Amino acid sequence: MALLVVGSVAFDSIKTPHGQADEVLGGSATYFSMAASWFGPVRVVAVVGEDFGEKQLQVFRSRSIDTAGLERVPGRTFRWRGEYRGDMNEARTLDTQLNVFERFAPKIPPAYLDSDFIFLGNIDPVLQRHVREQLPQARLAALDSMNFWIAGKPDELKKTLRTVDLLLINEGEARMLAGQMNLKKAAAVIRAMGPRSVVIKRGEHGVTLFSGGSVFSAPAYPLDEVLDPTGAGDSFAGGFMGHLARTGDLSEANLRRAVVYGSVMASFAVEEFSLERLLRLTSQEIETRYREFKALTQFDA
Amino acid sequence: MALLVVGSVAFDSIKTPHGQADEVLGGSATYFSMAASWFGPVRVVAVVGEDFGEKQLQVFRSRSIDTAGLERVPGRTFRWRGEYRGDMNEARTLDTQLNVFERFAPKIPPAYLDSDFIFLGNIDPVLQRHVREQLPQARLAALDSMNFWIAGKPDELKKTLRTVDLLLINEGEARMLAGQMNLKKAAAVIRAMGPRSVVIKRGEHGVTLFSGGSVFSAPAYPLDEVLDPTGAGDSFAGGFMGHLARTGDLSEANLRRAVVYGSVMASFAVEEFSLERLLRLTSQEIETRYREFKALTQFDA
Repeated sequence: MALLVVGSVAFDSIKTPHGQADEVLGGSATYFSMAASWFGPVRVVAVVGEDFGEKQLQVFRSRSIDTAGLERVPGRTFRWRGEYRGDMNEARTLDTQLNVFERFAPKIPPAYLDSDFIFLGNIDPVLQRHVREQLPQARLAALDSMNFWIAGKPDELKKTLRTVDLLLINEGEARMLAGQMNLKKAAAVIRAMGPRSVVIKRGEHGVTLFSGGSVFSAPAYPLDEVLDPTGAGDSFAGGFMGHLARTGDLSEANLRRAVVYGSVMASFAVEEFSLERLLRLTSQEIETRYREFKALTQFDA
Repeated sequence: MALLVVGSVAFDSIKTPHGQADEVLGGSATYFSMAASWFGPVRVVAVVGEDFGEKQLQVFRSRSIDTAGLERVPGRTFRWRGEYRGDMNEARTLDTQLNVFERFAPKIPPAYLDSDFIFLGNIDPVLQRHVREQLPQARLAALDSMNFWIAGKPDELKKTLRTVDLLLINEGEARMLAGQMNLKKAAAVIRAMGPRSVVIKRGEHGVTLFSGGSVFSAPAYPLDEVLDPTGAGDSFAGGFMGHLARTGDLSEANLRRAVVYGSVMASFAVEEFSLERLLRLTSQEIETRYREFKALTQFDA
């Protein structure tokens, strides 16, 4: 089934204890679509500047990602510079240049209006809602957000939350949004705001899904080396939504499988800088790692 | 099979966002033995002062814990005062009075010398080794330690590590001990120091076991309310070792079950202050929560 993402496309400059990368492809829509492309077709709505050329477009095309909604406007593409230290659990932002992203007004190509699954990446909640309103028929609308919007536009975010089915959010931001330290209670507060399911991302500690009457916890995959954590959350979302769109199955059991596929894609994303690992994956590797997650969590009654 | 713990018995005074408790029973040997007592007999080696009376002894006896190794000496019992705030992931120590614990020299009663499973709670690594040397025949010797000893007596701790089979340790302290931020590599470094298995405790994020050629991750149980995190780690250890001693089975599959039983006991311990919840458990409740862990982590291939 058709999957659409709206979010950012950026040039990232990243420093980690293991190296650095300058002006590499990044952004929420980029990581999401690369991860999701391993599960089926993806449509991207985002904005880029004149410095985004054939070479960058080719990266999307190499994964058969539909870029009809990738708007190119005068100016420079969004740039982000960040650094990770220590346990690399949090990025320190050194510089943000919004550039063309500052006036991003997502335009949904008519051919995208039949999208069944939509992922509203971490952008202004007003824009997220605007996109959602143009796609009222979608079977599943999922939203990502962050502290910047929770603190800066709480009322707009809450209005947007009422229109979506599922929220993906970091642990600390879930607590912040709910005003509740206990995670189980925080999830209940958030679900009362609109989304019937909440996926709480805990970085190297895994993911917890609150949906229906049940809770599901998946660990993160224990990697020998995390080179660059950038894009882990959006790669998770790409695998998660990609699996749901591929199967068209919104049962509890399949949401759990989607969480594991999301965790698989996040684990690959962080193994190398930028999109490098996501670009040279194979479907075989994805299935192998899925089975490794099974082995990682398996115990008998 | 016979299970022995050596550690501390204390009077704790605890403040959390949900309340406080003054001069309540605590200490590593206390939490461990209460949790382990639900799986079979436990022998305790610890020291208390003259203020530890019949009332306190009765708490141990009510769980059929063998207190022949609980030495009573002149002076006051170990006291700890701490506070938890925010997400309650870490205690702030407000006051520590070692009292009789300062000169603790563990004495193993002759009747304890046939113990098959021993847990060396978080005390001076020199004392831990001294106990271990008196019980060379034990089938499994497990050790707990902390930053205070890693920083203060690194060489003694390493000497002791060479004599044990398994280390239980907090995530941050595993990194500190190994001098390695990556947790998988940290576990490998620690295993090269002696213990063939390492259990890394991640508080509200669960537990990861590195043993044999495999890794096992179990989440923490999502509780509606954590009243008092004190003793979670030692209650985990009690459930873990209690299950191993009960079954006498050191296979990989059974170590995994033991991790889940440990997680079950930790989840109960933090539901109320001090030992309250551990004292009024039932075996039925333990088995029910074990099955809930299964439901929490279950996904299909």
